[in-house]
Amino acid sequence: MAQKQNTQPPKGTRDFLPRDVRRREHVLKTVRAVYSRYGFEPLETPAMERLDTLLGKYGEEGDQLIFRILERGAELGRAVDKIIGESKTAAEPRALHKFAERELAEMALRYDLTVPLARVVAEHQAELPKFFKRYQIQPVWRADRPAKGRFREFYQCDVDIVGSESVLCEVEVCSAIAEVMDGLGFDDYKIRLNHRGVLRGMIEASGIGLEHEVDAITALDKLDKIGVDGVAKEMAERGIAADAATALIARAQLATQHTGGSLLEELGRALEKSEAGSRGVKQLQELVSFAAHTPAGRRLAVDPSLARGLSYYTGPIFEVAVKDLAGSLGGGGRYDKLVGMFLNRDLPAVGFSLGLERILVVMEERNMFPALDAPAEVMVFRIEDATTAETLQTLHAIRAAGISAELYPNVDKLGKQFQYATTRGARVAAFVGGQEKDAGTVALKQLQTQQQTSAPRAELVAKLRELLASR
Amino acid sequence: MAQKQNTQPPKGTRDFLPRDVRRREHVLKTVRAVYSRYGFEPLETPAMERLDTLLGKYGEEGDQLIFRILERGAELGRAVDKIIGESKTAAEPRALHKFAERELAEMALRYDLTVPLARVVAEHQAELPKFFKRYQIQPVWRADRPAKGRFREFYQCDVDIVGSESVLCEVEVCSAIAEVMDGLGFDDYKIRLNHRGVLRGMIEASGIGLEHEVDAITALDKLDKIGVDGVAKEMAERGIAADAATALIARAQLATQHTGGSLLEELGRALEKSEAGSRGVKQLQELVSFAAHTPAGRRLAVDPSLARGLSYYTGPIFEVAVKDLAGSLGGGGRYDKLVGMFLNRDLPAVGFSLGLERILVVMEERNMFPALDAPAEVMVFRIEDATTAETLQTLHAIRAAGISAELYPNVDKLGKQFQYATTRGARVAAFVGGQEKDAGTVALKQLQTQQQTSAPRAELVAKLRELLASR
Repeated sequence: MAQKQNTQPPKGTRDFLPRDVRRREHVLKTVRAVYSRYGFEPLETPAMERLDTLLGKYGEEGDQLIFRILERGAELGRAVDKIIGESKTAAEPRALHKFAERELAEMALRYDLTVPLARVVAEHQAELPKFFKRYQIQPVWRADRPAKGRFREFYQCDVDIVGSESVLCEVEVCSAIAEVMDGLGFDDYKIRLNHRGVLRGMIEASGIGLEHEVDAITALDKLDKIGVDGVAKEMAERGIAADAATALIARAQLATQHTGGSLLEELGRALEKSEAGSRGVKQLQELVSFAAHTPAGRRLAVDPSLARGLSYYTGPIFEVAVKDLAGSLGGGGRYDKLVGMFLNRDLPAVGFSLGLERILVVMEERNMFPALDAPAEVMVFRIEDATTAETLQTLHAIRAAGISAELYPNVDKLGKQFQYATTRGARVAAFVGGQEKDAGTVALKQLQTQQQTSAPRAELVAKLRELLASR
Repeated sequence: MAQKQNTQPPKGTRDFLPRDVRRREHVLKTVRAVYSRYGFEPLETPAMERLDTLLGKYGEEGDQLIFRILERGAELGRAVDKIIGESKTAAEPRALHKFAERELAEMALRYDLTVPLARVVAEHQAELPKFFKRYQIQPVWRADRPAKGRFREFYQCDVDIVGSESVLCEVEVCSAIAEVMDGLGFDDYKIRLNHRGVLRGMIEASGIGLEHEVDAITALDKLDKIGVDGVAKEMAERGIAADAATALIARAQLATQHTGGSLLEELGRALEKSEAGSRGVKQLQELVSFAAHTPAGRRLAVDPSLARGLSYYTGPIFEVAVKDLAGSLGGGGRYDKLVGMFLNRDLPAVGFSLGLERILVVMEERNMFPALDAPAEVMVFRIEDATTAETLQTLHAIRAAGISAELYPNVDKLGKQFQYATTRGARVAAFVGGQEKDAGTVALKQLQTQQQTSAPRAELVAKLRELLASR
C-alpha cells in the first residue's frame, strides 16, 4: 500500500465538489440555452493539439505558457539520444534546453478555443454551413503563475460567427451576451464598445506614428488599472511624445463628457481626417442603432478608451463589465484575419469569450445563486432487514414518479439516519418498518417541521407531492 | 502567414461537429437525469494529476499508456542537465531513456476516473458525506494504439457509492444503469453478474492453485472472444493443468444449462466446500432477490464465466451487454481496497463505468437517435437594408417567446437565403420586406410545404406556434 501522498489537485487546478459543479452547471445551462435559441451550434475539440498548430499564435510569451505532452516510448528514446548528441557540440546550456524542448514534444494542451476553431474550419470546411455559428465551452490550459482567480485549467465559453462581414453579426453576438447576463440575473452590467479603426483614428489624430500603434493600444488598455498618469508614463517609456500621449488620452476619455449618440458625433468630428477612424465611427453608429432593437441596446456604452490587448482584432471590439470587478467578465470583437489562417485566406469572423470563473466569482460575492444544493428530495431509510423488499418498492415508486430519492444503504439507528438525511438537505424521509409493512403503508416525515404522517402505498406519490409542494 | 498545415485532430482524437455533440449530449442528458434522480452528485477533477498519483495503479502496461506533461522552463533545463550527466555513466540506452522519462515529467493526464475519486476522497474527506454517491462524466486519456472504436481521448461516465458494505449499493448501481439503458431506448440488454468469491470458489473446486488465480481469471475473461478451446490453450500456456482447466471452464459454462435461481442453487452446491465461493453465491442470491424490486430485476443474468480483467474487484462484478456488440457497454463491481488507497485504509465502494463511445456506436448502428439536428426552428431573412430594424424586432420577438431563431446576416438573393434555411433544417422562414413593413406584417413560409402566409406583427408568435405545431 502506498504511503501518505500529496492528494491536493496539481498547482493552479481545482477539484469541483458537487456544490461547485452545480453552480458551474447553473451558469452553463443559461449560456447554452441562450446560444441555442440564437441558432449557435455546439462544437468540441480534443484537449490535445499538434504543437505546431499552436506555436506562433499567442506571441512568444504565450508560447512559453503552453503545456506540452512528453513524447513516449521509441520517440522519447530517439529524442533523448538526439539531445545527448547535441550536448556534445551545443554552445551554451540555454540553446541546448531550447533544442530539447523542441525535440521532446509534438503535442500540447489547447491554450484557447480560437485556434482550434480555425483548425476545424480548415479541416471540415465542406461539412460546415456557409455561416458557421458555433459555441464551444471547454477547458483550456495555460502554465500561468497561479494567483487569485487565475488558474492553470479554466473554462472558456466562446461564441463565434464565421463567414459574414455584416455588422449584424456583431449585433447578434452582443445581444446573445446581454441575454446570458440578463438570464443569470445581472442588472448593472455594461457592454463597452469601441472599434480598432477608431483607435487607429485617435492615434493618427493625436500625431502618434503608426509604428507606435501597438505601444499606444497596449498602454491605453491599462487606463482602468493604472489611471491617466500611469498610462502617460508608460507611453513615454514606449517612446511616444508627451503632447501626443496627452492628446490621445484626452480623446480616449471623451466618454466621460459625452454619451450615446452625441459621443459618436463628437468622435466623428474629431476623427474626420482619418479614413480608418471615420469608417470605425460609421460602423459603430450602425451597430448601436441596430442593437437598439435587441436586448443589447440599453447595455451598449461606446468607450474610446477600450483597447483590448490582443492584436488580432480588425473591427468593433467589446467587453462586458460590472462595477465591482476590475477587468472584464469577457470580451470579443471582429477578427477577419485569424480564422482563415490555416486556409491561407481571410475569413470574416466575430466572436466573444465569456470567462466562466470570473462570472462565478461575482455571482458568489453577490449571492446570486438560487438554492441548488439538495442532491435528492426524499431520503428512504432502512428500518430492518425484514422490510428491505418494501423499502426498495417504495424507493422505486418515488423515483418512477420523477422525484429524486436517495437510499440510506445500511440498517443503522434511526437517529443516525435522520441526521444524515438532514445534513444531505433532503426534505422528506420515507420508511417502511414492520408496522408499516403490516398496514401496507409508508411512514413520511417532513424533516424541517418534524411532522410525521403516513400514506397507504397506493397514495404514496400523491401524498409526497403534497408534502414537497408545501414550503 | 503559415503554410498549409496538417489540420486533422491529433491521432486517436476527434473533432465533434455540432451533430456529434448533440448526439453525445442526448446520451449524457439521460445519464445525468437518472443519476440525479438516484441522489448521485456530480464531481469534476482536473485533467492533470501528479504523475506519482497515477503511477503504479494500472499495472506496468497501463503506466506506459499515461500521457505525461513535459516540464517547463528552469525545471526542464535542470532535467536536461541531469540526463546529460547521467548519459556519461549510464550502462545502456534503455536505462537512460527510463531515467529521462522520470526526470522530464511531474504531471500527467488522468487515465481513468477512479484514481482521481480516491484522491478526492482522501483530500476532501471532511467535506464529503458519509456515503459519497458521486457521478463523474469527463474525458480520460490513454496512449493506446488507436483502432476502430478505440481512442486516445474518450469519455467515461462513472457512478460510485463509497462508504457502505451493504449489497443494496450493488442493487442501486445496477438499477441506475438499467434506467439509463431503458431511458436511451435499449430493450434487449442484459446485466451479466458474477462475484469474485464465486470465481475463487470455482478455481479452488477445479483444483487450480490460488497462485494461478489471476492467470485463470485473465484467461476466462476471454471466453466470449476466443471460445472454449482458446481459453483452454491459454490456461495451458499459463501453466494450468489440462483437467483443472477443463473443470473450470465447465463450471463457468453452467449458465448455458441453468438460469436464475436454479443456476445459483447449482453453483452453491458446486462450491459448497469453498468458503469464498459459498459467501459469493449467498451474496449473489441476496443481490438478485433485492434487485427484483427494482428496474434492474428483469435484466440481471448470473454468469459464472464473467471475469472482468481488472484485479481490484473484491465482491460482485457486473457488465452490461447487448448481442450486437462484442465486449460490453460498461462494467463495474465492488472494490473495497482501492478508494481508500491514499488514506491507507480499506473503504468499501461499488462502482460502474459506462463507455460513452461504445453506447454511441450501437445507438448509431441501430438508428436509435431521435431527430436532434435542427439548430434553429426559424430562419429570419434579410430582404433589404431599409427593413433591418423591423427584421431585428421580428427576430427578437420570436426568441423572446422561447422559439429558437437564426438570422441570415447578409442581404443576399432570396433564393440563396431559402436554400440556406433548408440546408440548416429550419422549418419556417420569416421576413419583412418593404411591403410587409408598410402593412405592419411579417411574411412566414413553411419550408417543407412551401406554403407562404403572413401575420400582423402582434400575432406573429401565435401564428408561428401554430405553423411549428403542424407536422
